[in-house]
Amino acid sequence: MRFDPPSGTRDFLAAELESREAAFGTIKEVFVRYGFEPLQTPAFERLDVLTGKYGDEGDKLIFKILRRGEHEASGEADLALRYDMTVPLARVAAAYGSQLPSPYKRYTIGPVWRADRPGKGRFREFAQCDLDTLGSRSPLADAEVLCAVNETLTALRLDSFTVLLNSRLALAGLLRAFGVPDEIGSDVLITLDKLDKLKPAEVITELAGRGLADAQAAALVDAMTAADATEQVRAALKSNDEGASGLEEIDNLIALVRSQVPADQIVFTPRMVRGLSYYTGAIWEVTAPGIPGSIAAGGRYDHLIETLGGPDVPATGGSLGVERILALRSADTEGQRGRLDVAVTVMGDELAAASFGFAAAARSAGARASVYLGSSSKLGRQLKWASDAGARFCLIYGNAEQAEDCVTIRDMGSGDQTRVPAAELAENLSRLLSGEQQSLGS
Amino acid sequence: MRFDPPSGTRDFLAAELESREAAFGTIKEVFVRYGFEPLQTPAFERLDVLTGKYGDEGDKLIFKILRRGEHEASGEADLALRYDMTVPLARVAAAYGSQLPSPYKRYTIGPVWRADRPGKGRFREFAQCDLDTLGSRSPLADAEVLCAVNETLTALRLDSFTVLLNSRLALAGLLRAFGVPDEIGSDVLITLDKLDKLKPAEVITELAGRGLADAQAAALVDAMTAADATEQVRAALKSNDEGASGLEEIDNLIALVRSQVPADQIVFTPRMVRGLSYYTGAIWEVTAPGIPGSIAAGGRYDHLIETLGGPDVPATGGSLGVERILALRSADTEGQRGRLDVAVTVMGDELAAASFGFAAAARSAGARASVYLGSSSKLGRQLKWASDAGARFCLIYGNAEQAEDCVTIRDMGSGDQTRVPAAELAENLSRLLSGEQQSLGS
Repeated sequence: MRFDPPSGTRDFLAAELESREAAFGTIKEVFVRYGFEPLQTPAFERLDVLTGKYGDEGDKLIFKILRRGEHEASGEADLALRYDMTVPLARVAAAYGSQLPSPYKRYTIGPVWRADRPGKGRFREFAQCDLDTLGSRSPLADAEVLCAVNETLTALRLDSFTVLLNSRLALAGLLRAFGVPDEIGSDVLITLDKLDKLKPAEVITELAGRGLADAQAAALVDAMTAADATEQVRAALKSNDEGASGLEEIDNLIALVRSQVPADQIVFTPRMVRGLSYYTGAIWEVTAPGIPGSIAAGGRYDHLIETLGGPDVPATGGSLGVERILALRSADTEGQRGRLDVAVTVMGDELAAASFGFAAAARSAGARASVYLGSSSKLGRQLKWASDAGARFCLIYGNAEQAEDCVTIRDMGSGDQTRVPAAELAENLSRLLSGEQQSLGS
Repeated sequence: MRFDPPSGTRDFLAAELESREAAFGTIKEVFVRYGFEPLQTPAFERLDVLTGKYGDEGDKLIFKILRRGEHEASGEADLALRYDMTVPLARVAAAYGSQLPSPYKRYTIGPVWRADRPGKGRFREFAQCDLDTLGSRSPLADAEVLCAVNETLTALRLDSFTVLLNSRLALAGLLRAFGVPDEIGSDVLITLDKLDKLKPAEVITELAGRGLADAQAAALVDAMTAADATEQVRAALKSNDEGASGLEEIDNLIALVRSQVPADQIVFTPRMVRGLSYYTGAIWEVTAPGIPGSIAAGGRYDHLIETLGGPDVPATGGSLGVERILALRSADTEGQRGRLDVAVTVMGDELAAASFGFAAAARSAGARASVYLGSSSKLGRQLKWASDAGARFCLIYGNAEQAEDCVTIRDMGSGDQTRVPAAELAENLSRLLSGEQQSLGS
């Protein structure tokens, strides 16, 4: 019998779960202030809603659910676990239409499931965190998503990140400016995206291999890797209408977010193409030093929702790489709170009810409190339990305390002890826990 | 193409989701104050972890996940969706053993999946909310669970509920006192549980059908339905050791929780047997007037964790009927907050960046704020959007405001408007939103 969770999944015990939920809380708080509203769809969808939406490779990674009852023996599936948050969004947009606000600004945070090969930092059950605006063509909608992501990452204390910005229109204009034939356009873009990893000469060779004339390949790569690359690319883009519109889109977006995203934190990045072909306008990725890949990404995708079975609505959105971000944060979970603020000893059965009442008093003072639930009546053993639980204070109630109708409060840090009348316990604890009084000694 | 969620599942749009999450937040807050810590296990388990744990009927309701890749064609399953929270708890107890605190007090809130026939108020994906203490035989552990559940229900504003309390020991003693043969004991208990629905004569007939002698059946039912039933049953229980111990267990538990659960809110209920055979000690159900069945239930189950594949630990716990409770609360979701506090008009492209900045200023003042993302430049249209979004204030920034470097704040309730310097917007909004100033007019 194996007791580990299934391959690629995780059990979250208290410390890690609390850290994750705190991060999710921070994210939600920012998204809500931007006027995005939450959505939660079922863990599974009808199989036909998902199949054919993620390409052949994606389809193989869908977890399918066997039919039930008399149909189980057929070995067929009729349901499948959620693979991403976008297909369910398209279904919801189709299902609820005019019941949804227009534009529909929604965020969602929850698990998705992919039968990928599990590996370091790769899971089969992992959280996705998306925010999207359906029903607006306004560049303000793109700007809002970008600012919300920027503010969220800052709120999560990831402060040295950069937004790489580009536009599908600008990419089309770039290809046109350098005479790249339409039919090899997307291949050329995929290769150009490697300019951050490969040497320029290697990229030129790969472009040539994809059918681009040597001279054009060289001219394109030279322009994009020159010391004044941005100026050269800008000049090239202005040579045709698509490029000029794309450039205007980018500059307008940078201007819109200027008051919230500093100039050095959002950069027009001509080589950044985003692999996914469904983007139609502005595209962006957020990178952080020392972290491969991106920690957030998104863009405008005006036809995707219709392609996925939803209504024909313009759309823009983004996704936080929340598992990656959580992994970065997990290094800094020092100073974690104990499970308890107040631990209460139980020095024998006849004193148990009183001790139980003191724990209630501590809770009424806002503390996390519990009585000792073990079988030992030794004080040392119970103090060890209090210490293991990370309690700041331990309440001791033995025969001596009972005789005087009082309770001993022990500061677990300093070991200092003081007795207070039982009736005044809650107010004493309130004062101690609020930090009005730093310790029992003061 | 169907756009509704799969049978028995639900899409949660903003209002309902916010109401659910608020309730979950309330529950967590109470559980944490009692020193319970959160646990989250994966949505699916290996199939062999689940099968055989829920009886033949339960096994048929498990959602099984088809093997993947080359194995998909086999039609076999290797994983299955979580069916409850107890089997995963047993696995976690086995997997992490000494890494867990002792006793291990954990709560969990999350979806489980059962392929039941969906119906009114019955779902295939629904939330379960459990709290359990593993590793303590102390009655204080039972008392803690009971008080935490009581406090949670009160915090959820369910205030007219009753805890029905009994004990497996008392039930055994009751059967012995009335000479019920061991081999028909559990059948007799199942029938006795119907005393709240059937007439005494009907229960006697059913008991006789189960093999209990007529005279014994009549004596048992008479004692349990007499005007002084509790006294009669108490006297009967004291006639044997098991019964006496069970009665002591019940009275002790009532005494322990007395300071937190008023006497009329927790009642020794001899007929209440809880269907599940795994309970070993105190058992309880919480009922509320007008609501069939229970809104919470639990008890002590000292051998179940081992039976489910975990270590041999004593255990006690409970489960809130959280979907039922949420359904009761949904009637009272009046006075819901709008999606926005502050809506910001965009009166033309050249004013867009400034409007976008005003939304940012409103957010920095703690407001939920958004700019208008539609295509109309008509004020009336934009005010309608602000109103639909439930905004308390609308910021208007047109050419007149631009000329004076100010912003018009419109109170959407009263229609009152005032102009403030653009630079002083955030502080003005802070004041308005904090309610320091009730309206623009005052």
